[in-house]
Amino acid sequence: MGVGGLEYVALVIYDVRDNKLRSEISKFLKRVGLSRIQKSAFAGSIRPSDRSELEAGLRRLVRGWSNYNIQVYVISASTYSSRTVISEGYVLEEDEEFLV
Amino acid sequence: MGVGGLEYVALVIYDVRDNKLRSEISKFLKRVGLSRIQKSAFAGSIRPSDRSELEAGLRRLVRGWSNYNIQVYVISASTYSSRTVISEGYVLEEDEEFLV
Repeated sequence: MGVGGLEYVALVIYDVRDNKLRSEISKFLKRVGLSRIQKSAFAGSIRPSDRSELEAGLRRLVRGWSNYNIQVYVISASTYSSRTVISEGYVLEEDEEFLV
Repeated sequence: MGVGGLEYVALVIYDVRDNKLRSEISKFLKRVGLSRIQKSAFAGSIRPSDRSELEAGLRRLVRGWSNYNIQVYVISASTYSSRTVISEGYVLEEDEEFLV
């Protein structure tokens, strides 16, 4: 699933203390079709009707854990397209979840 | 500046390798009136006309640095309000920039 063409984009940002939980969150977000845009941020097309499923999956993952903050924004594709990215020499370590 | 009442909210997320640059970015975002919502994310009301100034300030800060990715989203206040926050036992270390 890409982020263009469709009408809505889910933007998920997270700050999670535990390495294992953080890794599980990133694997989950990848599995549901989002793409990593920063170390702790994913984005991807979403149907508004799928939002509750995405959030339910996240709530299931964090059950029993503490010290985490996950935020889900559903924005229009045009708002997503008009984001500004200021970046230099930045390499996303896509596989970092396998290194922890 | 809060995030309610006005029409637009700037959401700034960043992934910055260098501690000093990261600290300068967070101080800058605070100074222009945004509030920290995660370790590396700020949000706050913005007039669309102020967006270019915010971005120019960020570009000025990162000049000469490398290994950073900053993303600026300008979303409607209602979209911001309808974000979902999944959080437990999470404490924002507001002063972390003085600890690095």
